[in-house]
Amino acid sequence: MDLKQYVTTVEDWPKPGISFKDITTIMDNGEAYKYATDQIVEYAKKVNADIIVGPEARGFIIGCPVAYSLGIGFAPVRKEGKLPREVIRAEYGLEYGKDILTMHKDAVKPGQRVLIVDDLLATGGTIDATIRLVEELGGVVVGCAFLIELTYLEGRKKLKDYDICTLMQY
Amino acid sequence: MDLKQYVTTVEDWPKPGISFKDITTIMDNGEAYKYATDQIVEYAKKVNADIIVGPEARGFIIGCPVAYSLGIGFAPVRKEGKLPREVIRAEYGLEYGKDILTMHKDAVKPGQRVLIVDDLLATGGTIDATIRLVEELGGVVVGCAFLIELTYLEGRKKLKDYDICTLMQY
Repeated sequence: MDLKQYVTTVEDWPKPGISFKDITTIMDNGEAYKYATDQIVEYAKKVNADIIVGPEARGFIIGCPVAYSLGIGFAPVRKEGKLPREVIRAEYGLEYGKDILTMHKDAVKPGQRVLIVDDLLATGGTIDATIRLVEELGGVVVGCAFLIELTYLEGRKKLKDYDICTLMQY
Repeated sequence: MDLKQYVTTVEDWPKPGISFKDITTIMDNGEAYKYATDQIVEYAKKVNADIIVGPEARGFIIGCPVAYSLGIGFAPVRKEGKLPREVIRAEYGLEYGKDILTMHKDAVKPGQRVLIVDDLLATGGTIDATIRLVEELGGVVVGCAFLIELTYLEGRKKLKDYDICTLMQY
């Protein structure tokens, strides 16, 4: 299946000059959504993941069915103030200023083999912060999987110490 | 399986007097997460759903694996400004003021049988707005499924014209 035919490119969103890759047109097609998810399930098996970790909200869209399919857990990474119990924090840079991602302190157990899943690898800032959170909890990042990679933003360089799986490259 | 044993009650969050039901301790247990999801998959089969719709972000956590399991699509409901293409909007009341939910105009096709999924049924405000969005697109709401129902908030009253499935009641 050529997944790219289900991706919608939205020009000048969220601002002029950006070609946004909209994956909702993968998700609302049952066959394409299942196919894309199953590719990441196969990768998760290959790296022998114990738990899936994904940043909100699009990381949930792919990561949750991967976890379900394998019968393993899913631990969410959320913006500050969204998780109700004790959290750890990691900053990451935005174009202007910084933002903060959080995880529950008990979300990942020391030694667990963690696969990080998100929809899109751009500069890698969100995933770099997610990796720092997982490692602070003692998790072992065995891979990072994405539907889409924007190769010209060179996110792989930032994540060079980790195994990366991407289903589509632009 | 007694799912309630995997729910964590967090007192006084997000503010004093609230007993928050934290489902992350269901999700990070692979067995409990799969069991809970499978209950909603069975309900989705019973109501013969064509597509799953869920509000961000916790609606994705349950709704996405349900869609994946059935090989059907998932259409996200998001806050204003998060979806890149043309959207429709619905207001819903918060304790102070209002907020807006949006769906892509092509997310649901006329006549599609829609199951709405979220983590928790409280007052029903979010789900009422979600139903209005789906019906504006011509979708037929065949049911609404939740992990948890806070019965004392009487969300069922607001949704009395719809079939409701909840796995745990408090």
